[in-house]
Amino acid sequence: VGEPGDAIHCDEALFNVFALLGKRWNGLLVSALLQRPAHFAELRRAIPGLSESILADRLAELVEAGLVLREVIHGPPLRVIYRLTERGEALRPAVEELARWALRYYGAGQPG
Amino acid sequence: VGEPGDAIHCDEALFNVFALLGKRWNGLLVSALLQRPAHFAELRRAIPGLSESILADRLAELVEAGLVLREVIHGPPLRVIYRLTERGEALRPAVEELARWALRYYGAGQPG
Repeated sequence: VGEPGDAIHCDEALFNVFALLGKRWNGLLVSALLQRPAHFAELRRAIPGLSESILADRLAELVEAGLVLREVIHGPPLRVIYRLTERGEALRPAVEELARWALRYYGAGQPG
Repeated sequence: VGEPGDAIHCDEALFNVFALLGKRWNGLLVSALLQRPAHFAELRRAIPGLSESILADRLAELVEAGLVLREVIHGPPLRVIYRLTERGEALRPAVEELARWALRYYGAGQPG
């Protein structure tokens, strides 16, 4: 907590987090995968309004950022499953706090 | 935590939170104001790369969302100060968790 005279500063690490999780769908995908690992089609069903190509882009970005692991399960049938890495899983307390806040001030399921 | 058979669902309240805080600069502005109330010029100095007009837009949006209060202090000189509302202040635990996560996995001040 700052004193009146202190310069307000901005946390660069936090800046990067907001840039990553703030990007449309990314935070929501992390919160979906906090429930359990999921197939592409399940994620698509979970988030209405998200197209296949954008979902693929976002998952690739989360894989690149080290939050999500793309796991190929050799079949047949061959299946791909997405799961959080340790780093992604470590977002659970933060996402739970955000969900608590959202529920408290906006209620469940209320459109924005 | 979901069971393997459960449908992955997406929390609509959380969706709205990510839409609001995820928007470029908004989360960072909230985290800056968690330090203390600040004048417009202080916020601008705190966040390099943020123009005056965009800062004004974002603050107006956060006021509209009920997270920030725009307080006019009659002078002279007349001054405007921005402070978090109770709702904005209630984001503190979530932002602290995010900052902890960012520090752990990305380190302090490391550019993204």
